[in-house]
Amino acid sequence: MVKLDFSKINGDLLPAIAQDYKTGEILMVAFMNEEAFNKTIETGLATYWSRSRNELWTKGLTSGNVQKVKEIYTDCDLDTVVMKVEQIGGGACHTGKRTCFYRKIENDKIIEIL
Amino acid sequence: MVKLDFSKINGDLLPAIAQDYKTGEILMVAFMNEEAFNKTIETGLATYWSRSRNELWTKGLTSGNVQKVKEIYTDCDLDTVVMKVEQIGGGACHTGKRTCFYRKIENDKIIEIL
Repeated sequence: MVKLDFSKINGDLLPAIAQDYKTGEILMVAFMNEEAFNKTIETGLATYWSRSRNELWTKGLTSGNVQKVKEIYTDCDLDTVVMKVEQIGGGACHTGKRTCFYRKIENDKIIEIL
Repeated sequence: MVKLDFSKINGDLLPAIAQDYKTGEILMVAFMNEEAFNKTIETGLATYWSRSRNELWTKGLTSGNVQKVKEIYTDCDLDTVVMKVEQIGGGACHTGKRTCFYRKIENDKIIEIL
């Protein structure tokens, strides 16, 4: 049984990073509670805890842009997970871009690069 | 002036991901408050807020394993940063490994892969 440390953020969350399994590009960062983690393992689809909506959130269930989980890693402290995913559909971001990280910080400015 | 959203974790933190600028490997995930972010920009060395020690933490200042920041990205919500870094020294992890993510979760077990 995998025991991760969900205690450090709001008492029940840890950061979960979705990384493209082929390119290594970081697609998005969200949060999981234990239920979201277990559902991710069970279904093979990245499932987060939505802090704004206060509910389990299987990414892409509405839009079709689901994330098929290929591999999961955790770190030395067991308080973060990295998922290698296959991003289905147009992209990970609600803006339609392939990654949420389409903004570069340069010379004290934010530049959109996608 | 870059305005990020530090409000969502403990009221003053956001997740900061260090990714190897050449390989795309995720090296570690830690947290920044605004002071840590500004110090990272000023010095070019990844600087976090240590939640355990409650202090600014320029990674590697003691060990020599600093992270030279090549590029910084932020996301659609402005509440996470990804740094492309050059990891100096043996590695990012306090265990001596090159990445903190040396544990793979497979079949309900955690396997060390490095």
